[in-house]
Amino acid sequence: MTAQQERAILTREKVIAGAAEVFYRQGFGGATLSDITAAAGVTKGALYFHFPSKDDVALAIIEAEHRIATAAAARILESTAGPLESMLRLCADLAERLTTDPIVRAGIRLTTETSSFDRSLTRPYEDWLATFEALARAATATGELRAGTDAAKLAHFIIPAFTGVQVVSDVFTERADLRQRVREMWEILLPALVPPGDESSSQRMLEAAFSPR
Amino acid sequence: MTAQQERAILTREKVIAGAAEVFYRQGFGGATLSDITAAAGVTKGALYFHFPSKDDVALAIIEAEHRIATAAAARILESTAGPLESMLRLCADLAERLTTDPIVRAGIRLTTETSSFDRSLTRPYEDWLATFEALARAATATGELRAGTDAAKLAHFIIPAFTGVQVVSDVFTERADLRQRVREMWEILLPALVPPGDESSSQRMLEAAFSPR
Repeated sequence: MTAQQERAILTREKVIAGAAEVFYRQGFGGATLSDITAAAGVTKGALYFHFPSKDDVALAIIEAEHRIATAAAARILESTAGPLESMLRLCADLAERLTTDPIVRAGIRLTTETSSFDRSLTRPYEDWLATFEALARAATATGELRAGTDAAKLAHFIIPAFTGVQVVSDVFTERADLRQRVREMWEILLPALVPPGDESSSQRMLEAAFSPR
Repeated sequence: MTAQQERAILTREKVIAGAAEVFYRQGFGGATLSDITAAAGVTKGALYFHFPSKDDVALAIIEAEHRIATAAAARILESTAGPLESMLRLCADLAERLTTDPIVRAGIRLTTETSSFDRSLTRPYEDWLATFEALARAATATGELRAGTDAAKLAHFIIPAFTGVQVVSDVFTERADLRQRVREMWEILLPALVPPGDESSSQRMLEAAFSPR
């Protein structure tokens, strides 16, 4: 790689980092390109070289967030015991990233501000829905979820529910209580989902997924 | 009332109706005052007379939405049998309004676009949380919900879950499937919430709240 290419990559990363801060604080509509260049410490020319419009910067952040979350999900799916515990761990992990990772929290805010873009932002939801539907199906096959569980319907409730929990946690506490609220979501849901008599197993999974790091 | 006062009230209503359409379609950040005057069919001068800034128009819509939803909630709370059924009916009613009432759907979109305003928009959530916590407490007292139900925790999951269900329904179907998705939310939740053996009662409540109008 030439020195010039290295500088270009570095500049692009600076823009994304600066823009993530601005979008997270001010939302898409409230962010100007001047705010972004100021936060990123780059010139307007450098910004335009990488991103012709504010839409392009925002979409790059959503893509970066999705890559980070997908990689983290892959690690969890490889490493945990059963599919139901994976569902809990994925939620706990995303809750953690939503409070600590600047790219992730900006990306999710941009995703839930649906009306900011002309393009419809269904892709991130579709990936999560597909992952959770597959996990719910597997968990029903292994008997971790009740026989007869409708995996598609369940996934299509858990992903929106998580979405709302983080929106409301953001409004009230800037996500300081997010991890606890996501744990409470699972505490309420699990008794409806696991076979009768599996309470101790549910408790163990909750502790494993949500115990303080 | 003088003719002049009547005209002023009419103009204010026209601005709110026009702005509701614009905010719902374009979001807060994407809406300009020119868009609003064009949609409302009023002059810029008339707009500024009632609302000094875009923030003020948006907050007026959120207030109008909250008044509509609160009045509807009061009617439901007066007319239905038990507190658990009231919780289902309130959700079904708001789902219906979110698909059909221009002020309500614009108000909720503005509320969930949390970063659009400097002011924190916790009030609408607080009112819903308080209503649902009171209903959950009453439903536990009457035995409709299981003994030992944590009313505050339950309310603090249902309201965010509903919020997320409408956000995701909006992304995928512009809320065409919202009523069905909210029904599915309750189908998943009720088995965890009602005492064992109350399945037929749950089914009756679901039909009463969500049957097609």
